[in-house]
Amino acid sequence: MEKSEKLTLPEILACREVARSRLVAVEEVDLKFSNGELRTFEKIKGGGRGAVLVVPMLDDDTLILIREYSAGTHNYQLGFPKGLIDPGEEPNIAANRELQEEVGMAAHELTFLQQVSLAPAFFNAKMDLFLAKNLYPSRLQGDEPEPLEIVHWKLSDYKSLLAQPDFTEARSISALMLAIDLLKGE
Amino acid sequence: MEKSEKLTLPEILACREVARSRLVAVEEVDLKFSNGELRTFEKIKGGGRGAVLVVPMLDDDTLILIREYSAGTHNYQLGFPKGLIDPGEEPNIAANRELQEEVGMAAHELTFLQQVSLAPAFFNAKMDLFLAKNLYPSRLQGDEPEPLEIVHWKLSDYKSLLAQPDFTEARSISALMLAIDLLKGE
Repeated sequence: MEKSEKLTLPEILACREVARSRLVAVEEVDLKFSNGELRTFEKIKGGGRGAVLVVPMLDDDTLILIREYSAGTHNYQLGFPKGLIDPGEEPNIAANRELQEEVGMAAHELTFLQQVSLAPAFFNAKMDLFLAKNLYPSRLQGDEPEPLEIVHWKLSDYKSLLAQPDFTEARSISALMLAIDLLKGE
Repeated sequence: MEKSEKLTLPEILACREVARSRLVAVEEVDLKFSNGELRTFEKIKGGGRGAVLVVPMLDDDTLILIREYSAGTHNYQLGFPKGLIDPGEEPNIAANRELQEEVGMAAHELTFLQQVSLAPAFFNAKMDLFLAKNLYPSRLQGDEPEPLEIVHWKLSDYKSLLAQPDFTEARSISALMLAIDLLKGE
């Protein structure tokens, strides 16, 4: 069950930018697989900065979530505080900063849960997930267009959270389930 | 903890396409939030077809995974079989088709786990996660450029799977943890 030695990466025959916006560039990549098969795939390049997401625990059985406008779906989504890492910033510092900007709390204790990726077939986007405990009030000014709604949820009632129609983000769901898994092992 | 009644969706003042490739279009959206704040956000529109991902169980303690080339990261990634839903296809049918194309097995028993989204700030992309049990050999021809590497993993050893550097996709991790949660409740 180790990393495979059998696989040979396809050769990149050509790569060209086919579209560009302010934030992203779309590239078309011509690939030759080791068996000779040719394919052209699209991939999307963003700023290349990593991101962080934090599961904040107000106490041993209370999660803090936020409800925030999501432009991609044009609705409000329930999830955990998150954001991009600033240039030169350490991921745990970024996590504590986002927590202060979005929730108005800082954490004495941050535990790394997992690094996750977003649809690696198309993107090269990494996000570090953290669990935050021992919180204390501390607010930093973020760039949110409106105040975020703060939502408390009982950790023991996580199944009802999973059933909420606006709690859908795979990275928030991963973080929730990994946090539960970590906490039950403590 | 119900769906919030307090939040008023921002008004879309304008929306324009700023980039387009073969597969995606990037739109810029001018928004006016209910407090008067103005923002311009980018969102990425894909084909709009939903997707499915399947956690296949070979037996009560054996997961089946695949290792597949991912163009976005230009490496091989370990994850669960997945793919787009064909036009008019039911999600569970799509799940069983992908399982046959990518693993060469079909399932007598498919259980819906969760619908997840991918970065709703930028995309409107939904994926239905399934657990597949009672498998039997059945192969359908997919459009993969090369045979996928099939990997078996003990479910009880899921922590070592989470530690693999090529098992990173948030949607695969969500599906794994939700499957474990469902199975331990059975």
